[in-house]
Amino acid sequence: MSSRAKVHVTLKNGVLDPQGKAIEGALGSLGFEGVAGVRQGKFIEIEVAENDPERARDQVDAMCRQLLANTVIENYRIDIED
Amino acid sequence: MSSRAKVHVTLKNGVLDPQGKAIEGALGSLGFEGVAGVRQGKFIEIEVAENDPERARDQVDAMCRQLLANTVIENYRIDIED
Repeated sequence: MSSRAKVHVTLKNGVLDPQGKAIEGALGSLGFEGVAGVRQGKFIEIEVAENDPERARDQVDAMCRQLLANTVIENYRIDIED
Repeated sequence: MSSRAKVHVTLKNGVLDPQGKAIEGALGSLGFEGVAGVRQGKFIEIEVAENDPERARDQVDAMCRQLLANTVIENYRIDIED
């Protein structure tokens, strides 16, 4: 059995987001009006061979801190599904 | 007033995901065992100047089809918050 973790990695407030700004500009060029802001983050799905949701979360938390997120400028959120 | 849309863009099943594979390899190198699969997608938050959730969803759906997602290889999901 295994668990599936869904991880959202997003830029912290106040950190410049050039990708988001590029999307915002492109949407304006395409004629979309009223776009007040765009922020782009990452969405990562990880399948781990661990039944216990708490232990799965701990493992994925360690992965986020060591590899997936730059905690100086990014936040992350982990959701575990059985 | 405005609405905030949360958009997930993910690769369709069967589409190769080199970024996900790279993460999987890196997690293995870091000593994480039992990682059975990693898929990486995008997470985009958009603030639109539109009160009505249905109209906001329609707008963001058009943005996804025209810019944010490559619907040949990617799926997208839209969640609207007031």
